[in-house]
Amino acid sequence: MTINRRILLASLALLPALRARSVLAQAAVLPSWNDGPTKASIVDFVARVTTQGGPDFVPVEQRIATFDNDGTLWVEQPMYVQFAFALDRVKAMAPLHPEWKDKQPFKAVLEGDIKALAESGEHGLVEIMMVTHAGMTTAEFEKIVTDWLATARDARFKRPYTELVYQPMLELLAYLRANGFKTFIVSGGGVEFMRPWTQRVYGVPPEQVIGSSIKTKFQMLAGAPTLFRLPEVNFIDDKSGKPIGINEAIGRRPIAAFGNSDGDLEMLQWTTLGAGGVRFGLLVHHTDAEREYAYDRQSHVGRLDVALDLAPVNGWTVVDMKRDWKRIFAFD
Amino acid sequence: MTINRRILLASLALLPALRARSVLAQAAVLPSWNDGPTKASIVDFVARVTTQGGPDFVPVEQRIATFDNDGTLWVEQPMYVQFAFALDRVKAMAPLHPEWKDKQPFKAVLEGDIKALAESGEHGLVEIMMVTHAGMTTAEFEKIVTDWLATARDARFKRPYTELVYQPMLELLAYLRANGFKTFIVSGGGVEFMRPWTQRVYGVPPEQVIGSSIKTKFQMLAGAPTLFRLPEVNFIDDKSGKPIGINEAIGRRPIAAFGNSDGDLEMLQWTTLGAGGVRFGLLVHHTDAEREYAYDRQSHVGRLDVALDLAPVNGWTVVDMKRDWKRIFAFD
Repeated sequence: MTINRRILLASLALLPALRARSVLAQAAVLPSWNDGPTKASIVDFVARVTTQGGPDFVPVEQRIATFDNDGTLWVEQPMYVQFAFALDRVKAMAPLHPEWKDKQPFKAVLEGDIKALAESGEHGLVEIMMVTHAGMTTAEFEKIVTDWLATARDARFKRPYTELVYQPMLELLAYLRANGFKTFIVSGGGVEFMRPWTQRVYGVPPEQVIGSSIKTKFQMLAGAPTLFRLPEVNFIDDKSGKPIGINEAIGRRPIAAFGNSDGDLEMLQWTTLGAGGVRFGLLVHHTDAEREYAYDRQSHVGRLDVALDLAPVNGWTVVDMKRDWKRIFAFD
Repeated sequence: MTINRRILLASLALLPALRARSVLAQAAVLPSWNDGPTKASIVDFVARVTTQGGPDFVPVEQRIATFDNDGTLWVEQPMYVQFAFALDRVKAMAPLHPEWKDKQPFKAVLEGDIKALAESGEHGLVEIMMVTHAGMTTAEFEKIVTDWLATARDARFKRPYTELVYQPMLELLAYLRANGFKTFIVSGGGVEFMRPWTQRVYGVPPEQVIGSSIKTKFQMLAGAPTLFRLPEVNFIDDKSGKPIGINEAIGRRPIAAFGNSDGDLEMLQWTTLGAGGVRFGLLVHHTDAEREYAYDRQSHVGRLDVALDLAPVNGWTVVDMKRDWKRIFAFD
């Protein structure tokens, strides 16, 4: 092979400019993260798997990263956003169901009786979820979710829920994608509750969202195909359901996984243990009652207990929100 | 805005060259397809949805195309390849199961007694599928499939099954991807039977393969996470299961779908009807007994009957393999 000397020299002349650009890029990485071991562990992992010729290099098509949603990408306190949606739907649907005035758990919802609602137990909660999530086509449900999100406001922050997403995690999603990762959401939440807005809010397209689901039925109605949502659980994408869902939908193991609760434990195990190569697991620990919420082992929503103990054993990074995040929300 | 006149003129000077390149590209498109209305319908559809500013333009992220596998991308006669795999597995596993010598449907498989095998009915077939597809980890099953495909040969063509893929369809997959489409496989076949080789053979990554599945169980074994395959059906991705599977895994409607049998009818309906915008449906009609096989309404494998009648009603393109395909296989 002949090397054209002029081209070679011209290329070499470009090097300082390229190096300067790289330093600039480094400084601009994850701006809402404070410098320290947490941020360094992320940047180090990404550098290792993307360094061509390095010992830990991972080809682009294997750079799969999975993110939990509730408590990892957006707020999950004082209740899951999807449950707030369900309660609002019960109120909106009540005029068509006069019998709910005297029937639990609906009576409790309509009267705002939290105690009676809690007493209705899991059975009551499932009934509320089914009546509000089934009985319409997938297209109708998408519109209901979209319309609700456009008007609903969180009680504490007085903002649309889609603004209660963590700015440092948005930067992390974008940073991984800029480094060739395909980012997936793997959430216990309903897949059809998330898909209408994940592209706009997280930059994650519908086909990269995995979640819990109810069964659907295909029907041709007046020449038009529809999928009708049935009041029957299809899949619960939580705990050991997460690796199962990942295997079903992606078909290969992620090399990085991000969660915040014991519901993400098995996803982090599946991602990081016994698979060879460099892997990355991260848990968001909610430690900032002032700017967001502080909770872990005793919380009913997003309990972080076993996974927190296993983090140091397995080499998982634990984000201390108060210490590691310069800001929590874009509006901070 | 000031227009730099020199740049403008320089750009205009390039136009004839660009036009010449476009004519060249046109001629190079789908080289294994004979010119005629079938090929023209494909090229016309792609031109319409990719013409920026045109009335039928579709943004890249919505260019989803779904392909059936058996009989659409590779040979499905005289039996599904996956069933040939299952029969071979019964033979390979037989030494560990001496009782199979006297037990149907295994006795029939070991003795090559097609009549007795057929008499074992659906129950017998399910038993054969479960015993050969469950009872191991997902990683072990992937290795079994990969090893089998490396050595197994089709009886008629004396070739590995992965060479019995239709060259015109490979070109079609690549052509759509070159035009910004994301190509998915949506098959009645087992998703974990396809994923080990779809990237290499079709250029379709595991996360874009949707198929039938059995249930799996997550277990930590000696510190390593495993998914164990259970002898229980999870999902059948055929007929009305196809739109259901598409909705679960992709979460939006394709704008183009490709199949070859009544098992693809609902996928084509879901893709092309009542959704607005320009849509494309195509059925591969097996009409070439000499180069491949000829079958449709009476076939037990890949029956094409109702969908064939509905094709003209719904404006679906029907490929006449004998007439439309210059060659069937790459080795032709």
